[in-house]
Amino acid sequence: MGNDAVNGRARPDDLVVGIDYGTLSGRAVVVRVRDGKELGSAVFEYPHGVMDTELTAGPAAAAGAPQQLPPDWALQAPADYVDVLKNAVPAALTAANEAYGVHAGDVIGIGTDFTACTMVPTLADGTPLCETERFADRPHAYVKLWKHHAAQPHADRINALAHERGEPWITRYGGLISSEWEFAKGLQLLEEDPEVYAATVHWVEAADWIVWQLTGRYTRNACTAGYKGIFQDGKYPSMEFLAALNPDFAGFAKGKLSADVVPLGSLAGRLTAEAAAWTGLPEGIAVAVGNVDAHVTAPAANAVEPGQMVAIMGTSTCHVMNGTELHEVPGMCGVVDGGIVDGLWGYEAGQSGVGDIFAWFVENQVPAEYSHAAAEQGVSVHEYLTQLAAQQAPGAHGLVALDWHSGNRSVLVDHELSGLVLGTTLTTRPEEIYRALLEATAFGTRKIVETFVEAGVPVTEFVVAGGLLKNRFLMQMYSDVTRLPLSTIVSEQGPALGSAIHAAVAAGAYPDVRTAAAAMGDRVENAYTPDEEAARVYDELYAEYSTLHDYFGRGANEVMSRLKALRRRQSATVEVDA
Amino acid sequence: MGNDAVNGRARPDDLVVGIDYGTLSGRAVVVRVRDGKELGSAVFEYPHGVMDTELTAGPAAAAGAPQQLPPDWALQAPADYVDVLKNAVPAALTAANEAYGVHAGDVIGIGTDFTACTMVPTLADGTPLCETERFADRPHAYVKLWKHHAAQPHADRINALAHERGEPWITRYGGLISSEWEFAKGLQLLEEDPEVYAATVHWVEAADWIVWQLTGRYTRNACTAGYKGIFQDGKYPSMEFLAALNPDFAGFAKGKLSADVVPLGSLAGRLTAEAAAWTGLPEGIAVAVGNVDAHVTAPAANAVEPGQMVAIMGTSTCHVMNGTELHEVPGMCGVVDGGIVDGLWGYEAGQSGVGDIFAWFVENQVPAEYSHAAAEQGVSVHEYLTQLAAQQAPGAHGLVALDWHSGNRSVLVDHELSGLVLGTTLTTRPEEIYRALLEATAFGTRKIVETFVEAGVPVTEFVVAGGLLKNRFLMQMYSDVTRLPLSTIVSEQGPALGSAIHAAVAAGAYPDVRTAAAAMGDRVENAYTPDEEAARVYDELYAEYSTLHDYFGRGANEVMSRLKALRRRQSATVEVDA
Repeated sequence: MGNDAVNGRARPDDLVVGIDYGTLSGRAVVVRVRDGKELGSAVFEYPHGVMDTELTAGPAAAAGAPQQLPPDWALQAPADYVDVLKNAVPAALTAANEAYGVHAGDVIGIGTDFTACTMVPTLADGTPLCETERFADRPHAYVKLWKHHAAQPHADRINALAHERGEPWITRYGGLISSEWEFAKGLQLLEEDPEVYAATVHWVEAADWIVWQLTGRYTRNACTAGYKGIFQDGKYPSMEFLAALNPDFAGFAKGKLSADVVPLGSLAGRLTAEAAAWTGLPEGIAVAVGNVDAHVTAPAANAVEPGQMVAIMGTSTCHVMNGTELHEVPGMCGVVDGGIVDGLWGYEAGQSGVGDIFAWFVENQVPAEYSHAAAEQGVSVHEYLTQLAAQQAPGAHGLVALDWHSGNRSVLVDHELSGLVLGTTLTTRPEEIYRALLEATAFGTRKIVETFVEAGVPVTEFVVAGGLLKNRFLMQMYSDVTRLPLSTIVSEQGPALGSAIHAAVAAGAYPDVRTAAAAMGDRVENAYTPDEEAARVYDELYAEYSTLHDYFGRGANEVMSRLKALRRRQSATVEVDA
Repeated sequence: MGNDAVNGRARPDDLVVGIDYGTLSGRAVVVRVRDGKELGSAVFEYPHGVMDTELTAGPAAAAGAPQQLPPDWALQAPADYVDVLKNAVPAALTAANEAYGVHAGDVIGIGTDFTACTMVPTLADGTPLCETERFADRPHAYVKLWKHHAAQPHADRINALAHERGEPWITRYGGLISSEWEFAKGLQLLEEDPEVYAATVHWVEAADWIVWQLTGRYTRNACTAGYKGIFQDGKYPSMEFLAALNPDFAGFAKGKLSADVVPLGSLAGRLTAEAAAWTGLPEGIAVAVGNVDAHVTAPAANAVEPGQMVAIMGTSTCHVMNGTELHEVPGMCGVVDGGIVDGLWGYEAGQSGVGDIFAWFVENQVPAEYSHAAAEQGVSVHEYLTQLAAQQAPGAHGLVALDWHSGNRSVLVDHELSGLVLGTTLTTRPEEIYRALLEATAFGTRKIVETFVEAGVPVTEFVVAGGLLKNRFLMQMYSDVTRLPLSTIVSEQGPALGSAIHAAVAAGAYPDVRTAAAAMGDRVENAYTPDEEAARVYDELYAEYSTLHDYFGRGANEVMSRLKALRRRQSATVEVDA
């Protein structure tokens, strides 16, 4: 598992810094190069947070008159990201010094990961347009965060046209480009604020923008370029395709996305004097190319070999896995050459709703007696329900559910789908429905695993990171349902550790991410192994799940999309009844 | 509507008494013959209630060692019924005297209705076997209440054999004889306690047993004989059929059920001196033949004409309606010549779960904030959820549910079916699911109405009695969903009033039940009429309901019965998990 596996090229006390840029804050961690030990960390919350109702940055906001934002918008202020460098990094260094007596002078590299697709419109020198006097009050000049969903109409047009024209790249994304991604957000920018669009010299992933701030030069990482920027086989979608979307969009890729695409683990550049002053780190140390939170977690778990599916399980689940060959897996989020580690095909899949379904249930469907009993025991309602659910044998609830409350990303790629619980009787208890929902997400995972295997991409180990790994009952269930050995990541700050691993590689301490992951990343292997008796019962439930999955998800009965259409039509109306 | 419609044969001050024997108590009401006005009432709770865990009557219980009863048993002590005569009737008379100055001497008749099928094993003179010294400690010697469900295996055999032999009567019951009915309970008695069976001279409906106590003679009412006793076209199932079930059962119908079957509204006999002493009523007054709670409600609502479907809506719904012709309606509970009023075909259908589904939801699926808010407003959680649900336009929740939490009686006749909610998202609120469940029961009613209409039995008016009629939102929904004018019964004690109406007919105050119902029963016509705009949206939801109804209910996907089988298999096992 690589502990104490000292690489010849690293001195025993060499350190690296990893920074994980999340949705609301950035976390810096100081890591020992030789064994990946985490010596100190600090979190800094973005002063502007997520701007999704009004623009709280810029002169108008400062004058007390912030602009309102339309529905589905989500903006950020790029200065907040620099503030993380100025605050979290020095604080992490101080913490490491206090705990272990280590010094900033021993830091040999820095790496970062970011939410994606999060886009910054910039001038030629990387200055965000929102930081120019001309555009400081223009919402479109700000960072469009990953969860800015206002470009759905644009994504719909991209998808329709891609299928119409039979664009070869669409199959690399399971047939669907997301509204969150670079092209959809770029098209929205063009069509809603042509002036800002025209002034945008570079349309930059925040993952790359922060590296630009550290190094003074723009490099484009292979991960976001591939997964979010439709960069496949060395090229973007054609000018003809873009012109067919909108004549003024023809030059978008060639003009605003173009930059050298650099492999993950590469050296992006050296820390500038300015960035050294912000962070307290030595000028000139190695800076790794940018990366994405989910993908960088794989090396943190030392799980970058083909067949190791890493699932980052939180409100939703993101699955990343390497494969030796290119296969088109139905319903995957994307497959990118070098998308996780250089030299392998990186596959990504996703379940749109997991922990957020459990949270929805706890918030909306659990009676007072349960909340009270949980409080009396001093446990969360989730823990209380899990305790009760664990007392039943599999199948004893007589229920089966579909985990589509947020739609289905993989393998159906359909966000008009919705949730279902079947089998309730007058004796059905909340913990039984809760368990059925847990099971439904496990069945959703099995469906993904089976789809990969059937497409020729083997899955041999299921590696879990993310908040849900603390639910031991759920973990055992996932192992039983998938019949896979289940490993769990050791680090509690996986993405930041993964970024630190990339920093160590960029600094030359290890020859590649694979080697560095073996030395610095770690997981508990066989933390859970399948129980055959439970697995056999889950097979029966999974068979029911699969029948319903195909019936409702593959066109036999499109009731869910019809109900969503009716809901949209009727939710405008308000009935006042007797 | 018949108020003050004095019939020539009744003196202005003539009174009748109606008694409604329910599951836990009996209610007596004193009613004025000329207009049906209810002058006084009283309730008496059965001292032994429902014996479903142990036999609390008999010498062993008196000695402090009551016998335990097996699962699914439900017994009663017949002396409790006589106690209602001794207590509730005098109390109702006193109440009527105090409120209106009326006297027992003006009572000209008494009528009763009972739960059914509730069976009393008796000696030749009507003495219950449980009141004999020999059998006082034998559970099988007691009354088997309607909800005694331990004869399911016997019912299953009856049904299988009936279909195998193509018995003509099975179609009169929608293809299914219930475990609650006379033959299933009788076969259980034979096979589990042959001694008590052998000693049983008469296997008597409690509805008829109480009339026997009042009159001193045994008459068998046409309603329970038809609906519960498989008495069709003047005969019972053949001896050959019964012998094929069990050779010792061959003589069951001819021996233990046989008695004159008497039309509803007939005079069963005259009040005996003993019963006059119990009740304080004049000796020799008319006693009406027995009846059943649901069926007797139709005249109380003055809704005995063909096409008037009376729905008694409570925990479950019972639908009764008259028709001029015999039609075999798929999935009905039964059709009986003179089953509701003499001279018409009485149809019965049912929804196994209605109010109990709403109660289950409130108990198991509503969070603390809702219970608190309801308590603060001083309303029930049902009322609170209904208020919230009523603020949304139809279809705005994007949900559709199946109301099969207790299985489906009409029109699918399948108790292995179960509940379903489809369309949930992370924004779905409890009041939306609650509304979807309300709607599901309305769709279930529409399915029944449509099945009657398609079978040639027209439905022109929907008349509601029972506890749920106070939910105005639900009532409007039923009218919208069925596109029928909806009437509501006026009396709050419909069954007791219905029994009083039968008493008036038996006493000769009216020529028949139809005429008496017009004078004494009452309903609010057009209390709700369909809102076309809402009805159109409900049509869309009903189309979805119907597709799911047929998919899950008619064999395309028997997931529900498979899950119930798995549940039975697995609920024996208890898992202790990590």
